[in-house]
Amino acid sequence: MKQRAAIIGASGYSGEELVRILLNHPHVGLAAVTSRQNAGQALSQVFPRFASHPTARTLRFSDPDAAALAGKADVVFLALPHGLAAEYAVPLMAAGCIVIDLSADFRLHSTATYREFYGQDHPAPQLLSQAVYGLPEVHREQIRKSRLIAAPGCYPTSILLPVIPLLRAGLVRSTGIIADSLSGVSGAGRKAEADYLFCECNESVRPYGVPKHRHLSEIEEQLALAAGVPVTIQFTPHLIPVNRGILTTLYLAPTDSFSSPEEAAALGVRITACYAAAYGTEPFVRLLEGRALPDTKNVVGTNILELAWRLDSRTGRLIVMSAEDNLIKGASGQAVQSMNLLCGFPETAGL
Amino acid sequence: MKQRAAIIGASGYSGEELVRILLNHPHVGLAAVTSRQNAGQALSQVFPRFASHPTARTLRFSDPDAAALAGKADVVFLALPHGLAAEYAVPLMAAGCIVIDLSADFRLHSTATYREFYGQDHPAPQLLSQAVYGLPEVHREQIRKSRLIAAPGCYPTSILLPVIPLLRAGLVRSTGIIADSLSGVSGAGRKAEADYLFCECNESVRPYGVPKHRHLSEIEEQLALAAGVPVTIQFTPHLIPVNRGILTTLYLAPTDSFSSPEEAAALGVRITACYAAAYGTEPFVRLLEGRALPDTKNVVGTNILELAWRLDSRTGRLIVMSAEDNLIKGASGQAVQSMNLLCGFPETAGL
Amino acid sequence: MKQRAAIIGASGYSGEELVRILLNHPHVGLAAVTSRQNAGQALSQVFPRFASHPTARTLRFSDPDAAALAGKADVVFLALPHGLAAEYAVPLMAAGCIVIDLSADFRLHSTATYREFYGQDHPAPQLLSQAVYGLPEVHREQIRKSRLIAAPGCYPTSILLPVIPLLRAGLVRSTGIIADSLSGVSGAGRKAEADYLFCECNESVRPYGVPKHRHLSEIEEQLALAAGVPVTIQFTPHLIPVNRGILTTLYLAPTDSFSSPEEAAALGVRITACYAAAYGTEPFVRLLEGRALPDTKNVVGTNILELAWRLDSRTGRLIVMSAEDNLIKGASGQAVQSMNLLCGFPETAGL
Amino acid sequence: MKQRAAIIGASGYSGEELVRILLNHPHVGLAAVTSRQNAGQALSQVFPRFASHPTARTLRFSDPDAAALAGKADVVFLALPHGLAAEYAVPLMAAGCIVIDLSADFRLHSTATYREFYGQDHPAPQLLSQAVYGLPEVHREQIRKSRLIAAPGCYPTSILLPVIPLLRAGLVRSTGIIADSLSGVSGAGRKAEADYLFCECNESVRPYGVPKHRHLSEIEEQLALAAGVPVTIQFTPHLIPVNRGILTTLYLAPTDSFSSPEEAAALGVRITACYAAAYGTEPFVRLLEGRALPDTKNVVGTNILELAWRLDSRTGRLIVMSAEDNLIKGASGQAVQSMNLLCGFPETAGL
Repeated sequence: MKQRAAIIGASGYSGEELVRILLNHPHVGLAAVTSRQNAGQALSQVFPRFASHPTARTLRFSDPDAAALAGKADVVFLALPHGLAAEYAVPLMAAGCIVIDLSADFRLHSTATYREFYGQDHPAPQLLSQAVYGLPEVHREQIRKSRLIAAPGCYPTSILLPVIPLLRAGLVRSTGIIADSLSGVSGAGRKAEADYLFCECNESVRPYGVPKHRHLSEIEEQLALAAGVPVTIQFTPHLIPVNRGILTTLYLAPTDSFSSPEEAAALGVRITACYAAAYGTEPFVRLLEGRALPDTKNVVGTNILELAWRLDSRTGRLIVMSAEDNLIKGASGQAVQSMNLLCGFPETAGL
Repeated sequence: MKQRAAIIGASGYSGEELVRILLNHPHVGLAAVTSRQNAGQALSQVFPRFASHPTARTLRFSDPDAAALAGKADVVFLALPHGLAAEYAVPLMAAGCIVIDLSADFRLHSTATYREFYGQDHPAPQLLSQAVYGLPEVHREQIRKSRLIAAPGCYPTSILLPVIPLLRAGLVRSTGIIADSLSGVSGAGRKAEADYLFCECNESVRPYGVPKHRHLSEIEEQLALAAGVPVTIQFTPHLIPVNRGILTTLYLAPTDSFSSPEEAAALGVRITACYAAAYGTEPFVRLLEGRALPDTKNVVGTNILELAWRLDSRTGRLIVMSAEDNLIKGASGQAVQSMNLLCGFPETAGL
Repeated sequence: MKQRAAIIGASGYSGEELVRILLNHPHVGLAAVTSRQNAGQALSQVFPRFASHPTARTLRFSDPDAAALAGKADVVFLALPHGLAAEYAVPLMAAGCIVIDLSADFRLHSTATYREFYGQDHPAPQLLSQAVYGLPEVHREQIRKSRLIAAPGCYPTSILLPVIPLLRAGLVRSTGIIADSLSGVSGAGRKAEADYLFCECNESVRPYGVPKHRHLSEIEEQLALAAGVPVTIQFTPHLIPVNRGILTTLYLAPTDSFSSPEEAAALGVRITACYAAAYGTEPFVRLLEGRALPDTKNVVGTNILELAWRLDSRTGRLIVMSAEDNLIKGASGQAVQSMNLLCGFPETAGL
Repeated sequence: MKQRAAIIGASGYSGEELVRILLNHPHVGLAAVTSRQNAGQALSQVFPRFASHPTARTLRFSDPDAAALAGKADVVFLALPHGLAAEYAVPLMAAGCIVIDLSADFRLHSTATYREFYGQDHPAPQLLSQAVYGLPEVHREQIRKSRLIAAPGCYPTSILLPVIPLLRAGLVRSTGIIADSLSGVSGAGRKAEADYLFCECNESVRPYGVPKHRHLSEIEEQLALAAGVPVTIQFTPHLIPVNRGILTTLYLAPTDSFSSPEEAAALGVRITACYAAAYGTEPFVRLLEGRALPDTKNVVGTNILELAWRLDSRTGRLIVMSAEDNLIKGASGQAVQSMNLLCGFPETAGL
C-alpha cells in the first residue's frame, strides 16, 4: 500500500517540483497540497504542465491546516519560509506524521547560530534533537531512523558533497575554503518582486548577499562536523540568467604541498581514491573523468550532482567544481531521497 | 581633419564593435575594413544593424593587404588571432601607421612567457620594446607616446583595474589572489563551433580552461609591475548564457588584519581613499556606493567598468567585484580609448 | 538655449528609456523626473547604468505635481497608465507646456472606441481635437504644429508603418488583414507580477490577449484613415523571451491577383516603388533588400523599424515583416522624434 | 523479452532525445547507436547527462553499417538527413527490420512533390506504398500494421493535429488557412553554423524560409487527405531564443459565419464537441479549458501537444493555438509512440 503524502506550500518552485516527483512516485500517493493563494483550485489549473495526470485533475489545493493534514497524510513535506515551517512541524510530529522540512528551521543544531543568521529565536528548539540533516550521502543511517528531516539548502548541497570527503580524509585544510557559486533564478522562489522580473535578470549577472549569506550557517556547521574543528568559509553567491542549476567552484588548500609533477600525481591518486570511496557507488553523485567539467545543463531535471577537480601546481590549490539542479538535488529531489530512506523504499524510487 | 582608420579582421564580435564605435567617432573616418570571408560585401550587408549609416552602405570589406592598407589609413586596428596580428603589425609599423592590436601578440614583455602560454615563439620580438599595454587608467602617459598599443584582454581588464591600485598602495598581499570570472558567450568569438551553439550555451553554466587560461600571463605580468614582485594568481573563467558582459569576483588578503569593527572601518576608509585616488576622476571606472553591487546589465553597451568591494570580518578577506562589457571596456572600447589618447583626441571621444 | 524637459512616471521601462535619450539629447535638458515610489532618490541610484552622467547624479525623482512641473519644464513626457495620463495633460496644457503622452489616452479620436476598449469614459475629451497621433512618417506636418502628441503604441507602430503605404496606394485590400506579433517582455512594463518573472518567461512562448487586444483600437482607427473606409483586422500578440523587440508578420491580400511569375514581378515592382516613395528617405525606416529578413537584434537599441516583404504565388498573399525596438521606435524614441519635429530640432537629434 | 532498438544518426538533437527515451523504455533495449563523428566513444562521453545510466557507459557509437545493424536490432530509428535516410531504409527493410524514419523521405506519397520541395528524385520510391505517416492520433490503425513509419516533422505536427479534426468535420474551410509558427533553436539541429551561435539567436527573433518552407509539402498532403480536396496553406516559421518548443497560431475560416453571440456560442459548442471527439481520450493531446492558452513551457519535456481556440466575432475567424516540444511530440517522442503501436506495447510506454 502506498504511503500518503502531503505538501504544505505547494505553489512555489520547490513545491511544484515536489508535486512533479510525488505524482510519479511508485510508493507514494499525493493526498493533499496546500496553498493559501490557490486554495480551491485543482493542481491542473495552477500547474497546467501536470494536467495530463489524473490526480492533478482531481486534487485541489486546500488551506494549510495541520490537524486536517495529519489525518490525511503519513508523510508531510513543508515547503514554507523558515519560522513558519516549525509552526507546522510541531503539531504534525505530535500527530505521528513523518515531517520532511525544506526550510532552514531544522538544519542547525545551534539555536544561537539560528538566531544570528535568521534574526529570530528558534521557533521549536525542543525538536532539534530529533532532526537529521537530510544529506543522504553523508547521514544515510541517521536519516533511516529519523522522523524529522531537514532537507539541505541548494547552495549547501553543492558545497558540502564536494568538500566533506576531503575534510574527513584530511586531504585539505579546514581553513581558507572559498566557495564561489552561481545560481539560476528559480533559487529566489516564485516571488513577485521586481528584482526577479525577466528583464531584470536576463542579460544580467550579479553577486548578491556578500559577504554573509544565511546558508553559511548550515554549511559551516556541517563542515565542522566533518573536520572535527570549527570551520569558517568564504561564500559568494551570484545570480545568473538560467531557470535552474547551481555551479559551484571551490578553492581548497591541500594539506600536503605539491610542487613537482610527481607530487601532484601522487596527491591526485589520493583525491581520486577519496572520492571513489565516498561516492563511487552513489546513484546521485557523478564523478567526471578525463577532461570533462561540470555543466548545469547535464544535471538539470535530475537528482544528480556532478563533480570534477583539478590540482593547480602553479598555486598549490585544489579546485573542485560541482553542478546540480537547485530544485531537485538542491531541494525537492533530495527531500524525496531522504523520504525513500526513512520509509524503506529503494533510495532512487521516483527520482 | 579626421584620422583615417582601418580594421583588419572586422567580421568578428570585437571587430564589429570597433566598426560601430568608429562609424560614430567624431575625429576618425572608417577608411577600410578587411575580412577574407566577407571580401567584396558592403558593411551594411554583413552587419544589417549598421545599414542606416551612409559609410556602411558604401564601404566594402577587402582582403587584408598590409601594403594597401598602409596607404589608406593612419591608424590600423588588428582584430586578429594571436600570431597573425604580429605579421601585419610589422609592415604597418614600418609604413608609419599607428597600430592598435587587440590580440595577445604585444601584451607581454617576456618572450619566454609568450612561448609558455601561446605555444609558439613570439613572431615579432623586435617590436616588443615599443609596445604599450593599453590600459589607460594605469599606463596613460606611456600610451600617449606610443605608436603600438596592445589592447588588454577582456578578463585581464576586469581583474587588473580592481587589483592594481590596492597592490600599489600596499593594501593587499600579492600572494593568494583568486579571480573567479563569468563571461558572456561573445567572449568566445564568432566561431562556428558546436560548443557555442545556442542550445549548448542557453540554460547552461560551466567552467572552462581550468586551471591555466592564457590570460593569466598578461594578468600576472601587469600585477607584478604593480606589486614590484612576481605574482601568481588563481583564475577560473566560466561561460554563462548572456551575449555580453564579464563579472569578476576577487578574493584578496589585506596586508593588515582586521578583527574588530573599528579595525574593519579603518581599513575600509583606506580602501575607499585608495580607489578614490586611483579612479575618482576616471570617466570609465564607476565606484559603486552604498549597498550597490556590480551587475553586467548596468555596463553592457558602455566603456565603463563598475566596481564594489566588501570586507568580510569573518574570514579577514577583502572581496572586490567588477563588471564590464567584454567587447567594449574589455576590447574595442578600450582600444579606441587608447587611440584617443595617442592621437590627442578627448579620451572619451566616440565612447 | 536648451528646452527643459520633464518625465512624469520615469521609473518604468519606457520612462527609463526616455531618461537615457534625453540625458544625451543635444537640444534638451532633463529638468525633472517623477516617480511616487522613487521620490527623493537620485536618478543614478535608481538607474545605476546612468550613474556616469552628471545630471543623473544630481537630479532626484520627485512626486508628480503638475503645477510644480509646469514651472520647470517646457516639454513634459507622460509615461503613465491610461486614464492617469489625461489627468496630468489637462493642467499641463493649460499651463502652456508641450505634452507628449506615451499612454493610450489621446491616441483615439473616438470616445466611443476609447470606452469600448479601455472600459471607462474618456477622462479629457475636450483635448482630443488638439491631439496628434505621433507617427512622424505618417503625420509629420500635423506633428510639427501640435502641442499635444499621442505617441503610438509599440504593436501599432510595427503594423501601421508597413501597412499604411500599401493601403494608401490601393495595393492591398482593407479586409482580411492579419497581424501576428511577437514581443519582448519589457512590453509588459516593470510590474512585479508573477507572470513576468524570469522563470515564467524564460524558455516559454505564449500568445495572450486573444482575440481582442486594446491596441486594436488605434491600429484600426489609423488604418481606416489610410484606407478611407473602416478597417477590422486580426491581431495576435505573443510573449517571447527577449528583453526588447517586436517582430510582426503581416498577411495581406493584394488588390490585383497574380498567378504568373510575370504578374508577380510586376506587382513586386509596384510594391517596391510604393515603399520607396513612402520611406526611401526616412531616417528611421530601413527597407531590407535581397534575401534579408527583419531580425529584432538588428534594431534593438535604435529608433529604426526594418521591413521586408515577399509575394507568395502559391497563396496569392503578400507577407510583410517588420522589426523594431518596442521601447524606442515603439515608444520613447518615437516620442522624442515627435518632440524634435514640433520643437524645430533636427528630426534625428538625440536618436 | 525486450525488443532491440538501434538509432542511426544518434548525435543530433533528435537522436539524443531518442537515446533518452529508449534508455528508459520498459520494453526496448538500446542495442546500437551510430555516428560517424563519434564512432568509438561511449554514449556517456558524448552525452554526459546520460552518464548515470549503465547502458550509456558501455554502449559505444559505431559507424553506420546497415548490414551489421540488421543483425543487432529489431527496430531501427533513422535520425538522418533526407535522402540519406532512404539509403539505409532499403537494406534494413529487406533484412526484416522495422524502420522508423525521422527524416522527410517517406512522409510524402507523391514523388513529384518530393522532387519539387527537396530538389532531388526520391531515393526509394518502391517503399512509399509501405510507409505510413506516423501521426498516431490520425493514422493509428495503419501505424499498427506498418513496418515503415515516417515520423512527421515538428511544424507539421503542430499544425495537423489542430486542423485535421476541423476539416474532417467540415467546420472550417480548406482555403485560406494560415499557420504562423515559432520554433526553438534545437529545430535547426546540432549544426555548427554561425547563424545558430548563441549570440546570433539570443535576444533575436526572426522569420525565415518565407514563403515556401519544405514542411509545407507534408502539411498540405495530410490536410488534403482530411479535407478530400487539395489544400494550399500559408506557413511562416520564426526562430525564437528558446531551446525547445513550437508555438503555432492558426487562422481559419469557419464554414458557417457567426455574427451574433448566439451564433458564436452555437459554433463554439460544435468546435468543442469536434475536439472532444477527436482528442478527448488521447493521452498526448491536451485540450485547454477556460482562459488557458498554450505555453511551450507547459509541454517541453513531454510528448504532449496542447491546444486552445478562440472565435473572433469581430473578424469571423477561428484562431487555434498549439504548443509542443519540437524534439518530442514533434520528433522522437512521436516516433516512439508509433513504435509502441506497431510493436504492440502500451502506446504511452516510455513516454
